[in-house]
Amino acid sequence: MTISIALTKGRVEKQFLQYLQSRGFDVGPLIEKGRKLLVETDEFTCIFVKGWDVATYVEYGICDLGIVGEDILAETRPDVFDLMPLPFGKCRFALAGKPESIRHNRKRRIATKYPNVTQRFFREKGESVDIVKLEGSVELAPIVGLADAIVDIVETGTTLKENGLVVIEEIQLITARLIANRSALKIKKQSIQPFIEKLHGEGVYK
Amino acid sequence: MTISIALTKGRVEKQFLQYLQSRGFDVGPLIEKGRKLLVETDEFTCIFVKGWDVATYVEYGICDLGIVGEDILAETRPDVFDLMPLPFGKCRFALAGKPESIRHNRKRRIATKYPNVTQRFFREKGESVDIVKLEGSVELAPIVGLADAIVDIVETGTTLKENGLVVIEEIQLITARLIANRSALKIKKQSIQPFIEKLHGEGVYK
Repeated sequence: MTISIALTKGRVEKQFLQYLQSRGFDVGPLIEKGRKLLVETDEFTCIFVKGWDVATYVEYGICDLGIVGEDILAETRPDVFDLMPLPFGKCRFALAGKPESIRHNRKRRIATKYPNVTQRFFREKGESVDIVKLEGSVELAPIVGLADAIVDIVETGTTLKENGLVVIEEIQLITARLIANRSALKIKKQSIQPFIEKLHGEGVYK
Repeated sequence: MTISIALTKGRVEKQFLQYLQSRGFDVGPLIEKGRKLLVETDEFTCIFVKGWDVATYVEYGICDLGIVGEDILAETRPDVFDLMPLPFGKCRFALAGKPESIRHNRKRRIATKYPNVTQRFFREKGESVDIVKLEGSVELAPIVGLADAIVDIVETGTTLKENGLVVIEEIQLITARLIANRSALKIKKQSIQPFIEKLHGEGVYK
């Protein structure tokens, strides 16, 4: 029984393929995939989807395993088994804004792609905020006055810097994570266990 | 008072700039913008954001006008004034799937980026379906068995064809549309009216 993996397209994809290669897997067919979204190798079937969709494919049992950023898991809290962190895709959730931003007494407006994470962060601080959900280019919001600050993932900080923004507060460290479908983990244990052990070293599978 | 426009990044952006140019506007600074998200010309300020965010910037009054696909307006129903269709960004909402797909008696599962549009479409047909919200590559869902069919925008049909899918039913024609912030339309009438008339011809503004 081959195992199937849902993989985040783009930056994390390259890092995961390099990591697979370093662990002795043959990733040739995956690197030469071109525009294909579905690739089969001798060892596994891979589908390449948006980060936000990885957990959906795993939750519905289309894929046994998934590689996805912890940011997305924190936001969507899918019903999957969160197996382990992976040593790439490192960044952090941060509250960022203009350096000169002054705290007014009024309710602050926060722009973010992560409304649930933002809600929880401010609830724990005991502050009530208005959240504006954006899909991209969140760094633009404080510049044009849509928001007082943003909650976003920060990797190198270059995007913030280019837009004259600074990190106000760090919220959470993030890495890529290996997730699994709950029943596949039991039913396909014989295929999944050796894969995970090769990926990470022995003793991970409990 | 300069007017501000929120513009969908990418394909629609190029088509809109060509259209502006054909109507006699100087779009030089907008074409040479590089990575900038905010560009000012003599006639207007433009911000370049994801389609899903255009209406947000207009609704919150950050931009007076916005150019956005009708698909997004149909899905999110923002509180903005829908001024007029524009002669580009043409495509259609369609229900698509494998040609051999057989209608079972069980509830069908539909993958889409547009859950509200899909819900309304099937409600009007009197059919109850399960909707799986995806963020991208919706055409993969029927291939790997995540869904029986998809509801998505179709332009040329190439993506469907490449994935062995066909249009089962057309739902709605779509174009790009010009939207406006409700109060800007009244308060900045003196700036907005000449812009719209130059854009479209006289007699549009009521």
